[in-house]
Amino acid sequence: MKHLAIFTLLLLLQSACTNQNPSIVNTAKADKQTIEASSIPPITLVIHGGAGTILKENMSPELEEAYTSKLTEALNVGFAILEKGGSSMDAVQKTIHILEDSPLFNAGKGAVFTNDGHNELDASIMDGKTLHAGAVAGVKTVKNPIDAARKVMENSPHVMMAGQGADIFAKEQGLELVDSSYFFTQKRWDALQKALKNEQMELDHDDPNNKDKKKGTVGAVALDKNGNLAAGTSTGGMTNKRWGRVGDSPIIGAGTYANNETCAVSSTGHGEFFIRYVVAYDIAALMEYGGKSLEEAADYVVNQKLKEQGGRGGVIALDAQGNYVMPFNTEGMFRGVVQEGKEVEVLIYR
Amino acid sequence: MKHLAIFTLLLLLQSACTNQNPSIVNTAKADKQTIEASSIPPITLVIHGGAGTILKENMSPELEEAYTSKLTEALNVGFAILEKGGSSMDAVQKTIHILEDSPLFNAGKGAVFTNDGHNELDASIMDGKTLHAGAVAGVKTVKNPIDAARKVMENSPHVMMAGQGADIFAKEQGLELVDSSYFFTQKRWDALQKALKNEQMELDHDDPNNKDKKKGTVGAVALDKNGNLAAGTSTGGMTNKRWGRVGDSPIIGAGTYANNETCAVSSTGHGEFFIRYVVAYDIAALMEYGGKSLEEAADYVVNQKLKEQGGRGGVIALDAQGNYVMPFNTEGMFRGVVQEGKEVEVLIYR
Repeated sequence: MKHLAIFTLLLLLQSACTNQNPSIVNTAKADKQTIEASSIPPITLVIHGGAGTILKENMSPELEEAYTSKLTEALNVGFAILEKGGSSMDAVQKTIHILEDSPLFNAGKGAVFTNDGHNELDASIMDGKTLHAGAVAGVKTVKNPIDAARKVMENSPHVMMAGQGADIFAKEQGLELVDSSYFFTQKRWDALQKALKNEQMELDHDDPNNKDKKKGTVGAVALDKNGNLAAGTSTGGMTNKRWGRVGDSPIIGAGTYANNETCAVSSTGHGEFFIRYVVAYDIAALMEYGGKSLEEAADYVVNQKLKEQGGRGGVIALDAQGNYVMPFNTEGMFRGVVQEGKEVEVLIYR
Repeated sequence: MKHLAIFTLLLLLQSACTNQNPSIVNTAKADKQTIEASSIPPITLVIHGGAGTILKENMSPELEEAYTSKLTEALNVGFAILEKGGSSMDAVQKTIHILEDSPLFNAGKGAVFTNDGHNELDASIMDGKTLHAGAVAGVKTVKNPIDAARKVMENSPHVMMAGQGADIFAKEQGLELVDSSYFFTQKRWDALQKALKNEQMELDHDDPNNKDKKKGTVGAVALDKNGNLAAGTSTGGMTNKRWGRVGDSPIIGAGTYANNETCAVSSTGHGEFFIRYVVAYDIAALMEYGGKSLEEAADYVVNQKLKEQGGRGGVIALDAQGNYVMPFNTEGMFRGVVQEGKEVEVLIYR
């Protein structure tokens, strides 16, 4: 009897010690992670580079390598910040910088053209600790729209600014401005000409026959050492968009949401559906009010609610325990993750 | 025993008959209504004209009469549509017309001035049956922004348009455009000069010492004969606003939301808080996922969540049973309601 009691005590002690380290259960590759609630949350960074009809048969090995390499670089830059004890807000912002500066994605440098041959950029960022947020819509001269979003949050009484006013604010804040020629890339211009000819508007990655259109809205969600979540999203919108169309990316609650109590979310896809279904906040609400796990909530919104309505796209979502998911209802989504003690992982196809 | 059975049957029959008529329980004047779930939902229209430090001691009898009269007119116009079997979408749109055309409210004609002496108008509308929605932000030439929002919903593939592009779309749609002088009112201009002098931005109804500032965002929610909900909101934003600031009014999920399964909501108040707390959708989510009643949900969001953070304002909310609430955490909110079989009621103060 005495031996049994000691044995039980040892078992309990071992169990307690085990729980002090992250106990990570891998499920379905890197697309999701389930972590026990009692663990110390591991610092984590999850990113996306847009969703659409991304099929391996339409991707050249060189292009695949270019995407993988750029997504890996972005993850490394952001994760280095988290490893040094930096904030999730900084990690999200700097990660998105890398993606905005690349012509591969429909954000910043790689932004698609509007109907009248301009580039109108949208971005938003949210701090899960304070629920403070900032967003810009339709800026034309800001090199890194995610910086403008953060300046709106930190240095203005507002959450959202649109159009020329947002450009003026960015200038006043000393952000790097660029001439509209900075956003000119021949491939994007050709894509506009084709879209104009066909009188269609095009979503990210929506044409499997045109390799030039492999580009997308970008986003990042992060969990830092202090357990704070953050989320950010940046986009150039739709090729051939007109009338100052605003998608979900700069809309807090639709394209971006972060709250330490629930989750951090960045969306990509057919923005109109994501606005109407308040996608990012809906995932948080399902967790908070509906008692769903991050995985259940995100899967329900992306693969049921949106899918049933024809709302194509996906999200990356991360909770304060370090659980993450990357559900999408399209053929593919550029995405990647890096988590404390694990290798960087980048995925493209289903 | 036989008599008892017949008596019970009669009681049941009587009970069934009673339930075919709306059985309305009045609580706390017209500010809310509780209707039994088994009743036939009565057609209903609820409106607001903005919230703020609206105190009786600062209001002249003439101004009070002007507000009451205009709110009553708006309710009568919208309710006439519902009575003739018209849709909640039409009722919401036409009701908001009346308020937009009045200089009393900060929407349409009465829009406040931006920092650079312009008027930038925002509006949104949502159909609770289809979850379709439309919104415009920062339009400068559209006489009735709520019409532009509806055109975006019905005649474009988009949900939201901003800035000059939205004005161009409105023109293409044949909407009535006005010269910027239409929005000039001496009182609003003087308000801007004072705000510029004080270097402050002002919310609706926020200065008890200045009677000229008794104006506000307007909104309407309606329930029609077919049981369909709709919600709409229209505003001129904040006096002295800069940098293309966008508030919650044109944001689906923050300023406006409608879903037959839950509720229709229109918000008014400090827009930045309403965006960050995704106020309109949050009320719906609390009902759908949290099992709260309309009243519990709206009260929690306005009088707890927002209030604790200093987010001043209020909402009008209506469910598909005809229950409605008009909670606000400010000193007053212009508001009114008309419901089948009842008199029009207009309220201003607490």
